[in-house]
Amino acid sequence: MGKLARKVALVGAGMCKFGRNFPLQRNPDMWVEAWLNAVKTVDNGIEPKDIDACYIGNYSSDLFNHQGHLGPQMANLVGLTPKPAPRFEGACASSGIALRQAVIAIASGVHDVIAVGGVECMTEVSTTLVTDTLATASDSIFEYPAGATFPGLYAAIASAHFHKYGTTAEDLMRVGIKNHENGKENPFAQMQQSIKEMMASKIVRYKEQGRDVPDWKDEFDFLKSSSNPFIASPLRLFDCSLITDGAACLFLVAGDVAKKFTDTPIWITGTGQGSAALSLHDRDSLTSFIATREAARQAYEMSGLKPKDIQICEVHDCFTIAEILAMEDLGFYEKGKAVEAIKNGETKLDGRLPINTSGGLKSKGHPVGATGAAHAVETFKQMRGIAERNRQVKFDVERAMTHNLGGSGGTCVVHIYEK
Amino acid sequence: MGKLARKVALVGAGMCKFGRNFPLQRNPDMWVEAWLNAVKTVDNGIEPKDIDACYIGNYSSDLFNHQGHLGPQMANLVGLTPKPAPRFEGACASSGIALRQAVIAIASGVHDVIAVGGVECMTEVSTTLVTDTLATASDSIFEYPAGATFPGLYAAIASAHFHKYGTTAEDLMRVGIKNHENGKENPFAQMQQSIKEMMASKIVRYKEQGRDVPDWKDEFDFLKSSSNPFIASPLRLFDCSLITDGAACLFLVAGDVAKKFTDTPIWITGTGQGSAALSLHDRDSLTSFIATREAARQAYEMSGLKPKDIQICEVHDCFTIAEILAMEDLGFYEKGKAVEAIKNGETKLDGRLPINTSGGLKSKGHPVGATGAAHAVETFKQMRGIAERNRQVKFDVERAMTHNLGGSGGTCVVHIYEK
Repeated sequence: MGKLARKVALVGAGMCKFGRNFPLQRNPDMWVEAWLNAVKTVDNGIEPKDIDACYIGNYSSDLFNHQGHLGPQMANLVGLTPKPAPRFEGACASSGIALRQAVIAIASGVHDVIAVGGVECMTEVSTTLVTDTLATASDSIFEYPAGATFPGLYAAIASAHFHKYGTTAEDLMRVGIKNHENGKENPFAQMQQSIKEMMASKIVRYKEQGRDVPDWKDEFDFLKSSSNPFIASPLRLFDCSLITDGAACLFLVAGDVAKKFTDTPIWITGTGQGSAALSLHDRDSLTSFIATREAARQAYEMSGLKPKDIQICEVHDCFTIAEILAMEDLGFYEKGKAVEAIKNGETKLDGRLPINTSGGLKSKGHPVGATGAAHAVETFKQMRGIAERNRQVKFDVERAMTHNLGGSGGTCVVHIYEK
Repeated sequence: MGKLARKVALVGAGMCKFGRNFPLQRNPDMWVEAWLNAVKTVDNGIEPKDIDACYIGNYSSDLFNHQGHLGPQMANLVGLTPKPAPRFEGACASSGIALRQAVIAIASGVHDVIAVGGVECMTEVSTTLVTDTLATASDSIFEYPAGATFPGLYAAIASAHFHKYGTTAEDLMRVGIKNHENGKENPFAQMQQSIKEMMASKIVRYKEQGRDVPDWKDEFDFLKSSSNPFIASPLRLFDCSLITDGAACLFLVAGDVAKKFTDTPIWITGTGQGSAALSLHDRDSLTSFIATREAARQAYEMSGLKPKDIQICEVHDCFTIAEILAMEDLGFYEKGKAVEAIKNGETKLDGRLPINTSGGLKSKGHPVGATGAAHAVETFKQMRGIAERNRQVKFDVERAMTHNLGGSGGTCVVHIYEK
């Protein structure tokens, strides 16, 4: 058990511009945009006739768009009818699951080439309904009726981490600051401004309006002000990821046909998935996600790599505290030690272990069902050396990881990529 | 392409009693009942520690129960945390997809043993909302706003079949009559009465109420009366499947570990999946489903079997007309010839090719996300010779098929089973 019977390669990856795209774009439009951007990255080209199946990750077009049964719809738009077109769901890890199942399906010998998509159009409904819909990924009998939406659940997790390891609100802010620095360099990100720039614009606006200009010495002052209100203490607005519409597309192929598409495949050498009880009260720990540890364990075991071998990682920073938990649960740092690494700048673009070079969910945006596939898009770009603007890391990336989380840690999917 | 790298066997299968189970049971309760019934069928026993992953099929607990992220929740209830627990969706073919992906995952070498579940709790919402939720499996931009819910879409399909092949309303009635005859013998079915029995009870009720007793000579008279009102002409109430709560559970294992669980595994030798444009207006034909033809083609090719080799089949009779289309699209009969076989009784329990021995969606019930897995439960029982009451077919079933359809034919999953 635990080994892939065939090698699997990522040969193309692209995404649409993330943002508040509705009503100009719905899932079908964003998916086609992502598809076309992914096609461009396949060195020798790829056409529908080359592709055996279309695997779609989506969290809840049911509740966001009153549209189920997305698989055949997405497949039809890109000329893949009548091929298999299943949809996969695991809350915000939905397209991480689609990617994993595609890896598995190619390894099984049933398919040689699969198009993997992640799509989510969240802004068709009000922000209140977005929060409500996301809350259906928690336990609707035990957690949801208690009013525990995700900011509240992650606030409990953050509080527990503060209590156990001495983590502070400033530590969380450092995660957001870093991710916005990266997102600024990503033309596909929803927010392309550093927090420093946002602070500066706010000051300009205050001056224009003739109001008292706040005495902000740096981003931390800004982030501690009423401009960054509490959502669920200790989490403030800038600790939360964005509400986003977006889509991403990946082309996965069997090792024995990879050469047809490119001379430089990115191999997916490890895949892992873990689960946990949906409700926090059913868990042993608030400060560590068992689903992440299990998914990572499987992926490391399959690839034969260890945490120290990973050079870059896209982690699921749905809240700033989630990035800290991931850094620890993925084995990069001991429990309670991630914060020190963040302070030292180790996870910045020019650090030892760049994390979320894309800008992360915090700045690139978080169209929930598209996020896992978008993680792989960034990884593909970094490993190919084609990341836009000043976002490309300065070393040759030979080994990378993606970490895609669902709910408050009920699902986790981890992938390892090698050149 | 197209071959499984490892053999896959079904070693256990069970379901809960289908019916209007809410509020006494929700998805968690029904899933546990199905699980326990499936465990009983594994000759040498099976425990959570033997199982690598939990694959859940569900159409829309989002809209039916305001609960997403079912995978980890179901896995946790049966002691499978922190193992992988993805959810699969393809409208009413959701657990057919879960089954297919489990077959693929075992073939890939990543897992050896997978528990497959199908769950749906539909009666938590009103009948109007059920119809509305099911309609989200059609195209929500082009079909749904036109008021084309599924009875209407299948009515168009039936009308086209009537027009092209001379099929009649009586032919549809024969499908319902047969399936209720079978469902009467299924203790897990929602309706366990033949149509003749229902007619008789109605006559008794009329007499008790002192009303004029209708002059019904046989079931056809009853089915042509106002007791069987039109839902969407030419489809009447008894042409439509039921609104049902239910769950089913399957245990799938790799060929090389099958002996640990049983000496008489049921091999899954063929799996196929097809897709089509969601909207009928985007299709070439109303009287044949391309997704079914494609899924069947793949499954036959993988198994090396032909339609004439199949001895029994559970087909997706969401409407009576759908059973007729399936009989033709699966290659059992030429287009337009299925009706003759039905008239000859070929698909009855004692016929040449018994279809829907379980009672089908018409009589057993149709908890949409559980239906595909329930198809496999019936197939397992018939092949093992353990079908309850007088439902067991009289010959040894060596080769069987299941056919699970999503929406108005947007998705189809076909499996072939051999002893």
